[in-house]
Amino acid sequence: MRFPTSDFSHGSDAMNPDPDYSAAVAIIETDDHELTGHGMTFTIGRGTEICVAAIGAFEGHIVGRDLEAIESDLGDFWRSLAGDSQLRWLGPEKGVIHLAMAAVVNAIWDLVARRADKPLWKYMVDLTPEAIVRAVDFRHISDVLSPQAALALLEARHAGRAEREQWLLREGYPAYMTSAGWLGYDEDTIRRRCRAAIAEGWTHFKIKVGADLEDDIRRCRLVREEIGPDHKLMLDANQVWDVDEAIRHGQQLAEFDPWWIEEPTSPDDILGHARIAEALRPIRVATGEHCHNRIMVKQLLQARAVDFLQIDGCRLGGVNEVIAAILLAAHFDIPVCPHAGGVGLCEHVQHFSAFDYISVSGTLEDRITEYADHLHEHFVHPVTMRNGRYRLPEAPGLGAELKAESLAEFAFPDGPVWRDR
Amino acid sequence: MRFPTSDFSHGSDAMNPDPDYSAAVAIIETDDHELTGHGMTFTIGRGTEICVAAIGAFEGHIVGRDLEAIESDLGDFWRSLAGDSQLRWLGPEKGVIHLAMAAVVNAIWDLVARRADKPLWKYMVDLTPEAIVRAVDFRHISDVLSPQAALALLEARHAGRAEREQWLLREGYPAYMTSAGWLGYDEDTIRRRCRAAIAEGWTHFKIKVGADLEDDIRRCRLVREEIGPDHKLMLDANQVWDVDEAIRHGQQLAEFDPWWIEEPTSPDDILGHARIAEALRPIRVATGEHCHNRIMVKQLLQARAVDFLQIDGCRLGGVNEVIAAILLAAHFDIPVCPHAGGVGLCEHVQHFSAFDYISVSGTLEDRITEYADHLHEHFVHPVTMRNGRYRLPEAPGLGAELKAESLAEFAFPDGPVWRDR
Repeated sequence: MRFPTSDFSHGSDAMNPDPDYSAAVAIIETDDHELTGHGMTFTIGRGTEICVAAIGAFEGHIVGRDLEAIESDLGDFWRSLAGDSQLRWLGPEKGVIHLAMAAVVNAIWDLVARRADKPLWKYMVDLTPEAIVRAVDFRHISDVLSPQAALALLEARHAGRAEREQWLLREGYPAYMTSAGWLGYDEDTIRRRCRAAIAEGWTHFKIKVGADLEDDIRRCRLVREEIGPDHKLMLDANQVWDVDEAIRHGQQLAEFDPWWIEEPTSPDDILGHARIAEALRPIRVATGEHCHNRIMVKQLLQARAVDFLQIDGCRLGGVNEVIAAILLAAHFDIPVCPHAGGVGLCEHVQHFSAFDYISVSGTLEDRITEYADHLHEHFVHPVTMRNGRYRLPEAPGLGAELKAESLAEFAFPDGPVWRDR
Repeated sequence: MRFPTSDFSHGSDAMNPDPDYSAAVAIIETDDHELTGHGMTFTIGRGTEICVAAIGAFEGHIVGRDLEAIESDLGDFWRSLAGDSQLRWLGPEKGVIHLAMAAVVNAIWDLVARRADKPLWKYMVDLTPEAIVRAVDFRHISDVLSPQAALALLEARHAGRAEREQWLLREGYPAYMTSAGWLGYDEDTIRRRCRAAIAEGWTHFKIKVGADLEDDIRRCRLVREEIGPDHKLMLDANQVWDVDEAIRHGQQLAEFDPWWIEEPTSPDDILGHARIAEALRPIRVATGEHCHNRIMVKQLLQARAVDFLQIDGCRLGGVNEVIAAILLAAHFDIPVCPHAGGVGLCEHVQHFSAFDYISVSGTLEDRITEYADHLHEHFVHPVTMRNGRYRLPEAPGLGAELKAESLAEFAFPDGPVWRDR
C-alpha cells in the first residue's frame, strides 16, 4: 500500500525529497482461521512491489509449518529464513531480502503474541532469559557477545522487572517529536508545530538538516527560539554529508547546542561515524535506521561510532534481530533510541523500547523513542500518546494490522487513491 | 534464467550447499534496433525473480533516454540510478536493488562499448583519466580518495599503458582455478580435476573449507599432495566462521601453507576481518565477493582488513563502482583479484583485471583472477583460456550476452528444462 505523502512534503529530508510512505505487508493466517498475524516493512514509494515479491519468496518457509513448533524455538525459525542459502545470496542479511524477512518474522511474532493474548511487549518481557537468548542468532557476533554473556546480562536485570513494568504502564515511555521540522515545511508551519508540540508536553525536537548549511542555521535558530534553551534539539542529516563535511557542518551547528546529530554520513561507514563522533564531542552521534543487521550493530558499538543506537524493526530482520541489537547495546552501555515515523514504525517501537527498559537495560537515562504523527488512523490499534509519551499498548500482538478499508483504498496501483491519478 | 547446477554439486560450499546458478538479465535496445546492451546479475536460484522485478523498477530511468547524453557523463548516469531516493531506501546501495542496478548499469556500458566497436576493457583503457574519474561517484569515499587524488594516480600510470596492453594481448591475464575443490565433490573427482588443471598450465588452486575442520584438513592434504609445494593453494570459507573460530581454524590449516583464506567470516564484518588478518599473518585474508559498495571497500582497506580485494561487478553497482573499488585499492596498494565463477562472472572479470593492470595498478604482482569452468557454453562470446590465463576478449562489449537458445531453454520457471521437473 502507498500513501501520497509527497503531496504535503511529509517526510521530506535532504536525501529523500518526496517520499510516498508505503508498506509491503505480510499476513499469515492459521489453518483454522482463528488467528491472523500482521507484519510489514516500511518503504517510501517506488520499489515496494520488489519487497512484496520478496515476501512471497519466503512463502515456502511458512505455509504448512506448525505454529507451536515455531514458537518453541523462535531462534531456529529465524535461522531457517535468514539461512535459506539461495535467498541469503541476495543480501546477505541486508536490503530487500532482509526488509521482506522482517515483515514475515514480525507477522509470526504478532501471531504468537496474539495467541498468548498479550501485546508484543508483554509477550517479550514475560519470556524467560533463556527463551530470549534462544530467540537470538549469535552467528557472527559471538566474538563480542556470547549467549552465556547475554544470559548473564538478562539475569542481572531480572529483579525489578515488575516495578519497571508498573512504572511504564503508569507513566508511558518518553518520546520525541520528529514531525515539527521536515525540510519541506515553511517557517510558519514549523513555528506552529513547535508551539503545538510544547503545549502537548513534548520536550525533545528533531529537525532535518543537510540540504544547505545557511538554511540549516536559519532553521536551527528558528526552532531553538521556539523551544527555548531547556528543551532538547536533535539534528538529522539523513546521510548526505561526506565524513569531513559532516565534521565541518557539525561544528558550524554546535552553537545551537544539538543533543545529537543523526545519520551524518553513509549508514555503512562505521569508521567514518567513529571519526565524526570523536571530532564532534560533546555533540553526540546517532545512527541506525539504515543499519541492516546485528553485525553492523556490533561494529558501530565496537568502534565507538555511535552515542545513541537507533534501531529499526523493519530494517533489521524483525524482532529476533531487534533483541540482538538491544542486547549488544546493553553490553556496550549505549542507549537504544528506536527509529520511528513513516507508516507503522511507531506502532513497532513502543514494544521494543518497553522490552529494553523492563528486561534489558533497566534504565531510561538518555533513552527516548521517536514519534511522528502521520498515518496512525490507518491502523486497527494505533499508538496512544500522552504528554509526549507512548502509552503502552494493550491490544494483543504487534499492532501492525492495517484497517481493511485502508488496505483497499491505498493499495498500489489499483486502489481508488492511485487509480484516479 | 536458471541452471540446475545443484544436480552435480557444482558451486557447493559450506554456506551454499545446493546452488542453482541463475541470472537476472537486463537487455536494453536502442530505438533504431541497431544496438542491444546486455547486463546480468548472478544469483543462485530462488529469489532471482525478485532481482528481475528490481531491474524492472529502473525502467523509468532508461527508456527514452539519449545514449549519447548518457555516455557523455557516465557518472551522472550512475548517480541518477543510485540516487533515486525511493529505490535507494531499499538498500541503500546494497542487496537486491544494487544487484539489479549492476545489471542495468552494465548493460549500458555494454551498449557504449559496442557502439565504439571495442571490447569493454579496451573501451575502459581508452578513456582519459578525466573521463574515468568522472565515471566514479566519490560520495562517501572522498575522505579517503578525492577526485583529484584519483586523477593524479591515473596520470602517474599513463606512461607505459600501450606496452602493458600489448603484453596482456600477447600473454593473457593470470587466472586461478576454483572448480577443482567444490565441497560436494568426492576425492577422486578432486584428484582428477587437479591433475587435469596442472596439465593445462594452472598454478593456483582454491578449495572450499568451513563445513568441518577434520574434513578440511583431509581435503587440504589431498589437494596439496596433488599440486605439490610450489603451486599456490587458497582456501575459501564462504563466511561460515565466527571471528574467533576463523582464527582458530586458520591456525589449524596453516600447515598446508595457504596463500590466502577467503571470506573467513561475515562480509559485513570489517573489524572482524581486521582482527583475523592480524592474527593469521603471514597467511593472507581475501574478501569482497559480497562486499556491496565502495563505502565498504573503503573501510576494508582503511582497517587493513584485507590483503587481497575481491570485487564482483554484479554485486557492486556495475562498472562505475568497480572502477571506484579499483582506484581505492590502488590508493592503498592492495591487489585486486576479482571474484568470478557462477554464470557470466568470468566474462565480466577479464575486463576489470585488464583495466586494473593497464590503466590503474600497472602491475601483476600478487594479482590473479578467478576462473571456473562452468556454463560458458551459454554465452555468445565465452571467455577463452590458455595456459591458465584469460585471453583478452576481442568481441565488442562486455560479453554478458547469453545465447537466445539458452535463454529460452533455461528460462525459469517456463523453459523446457524446468517445465518438465
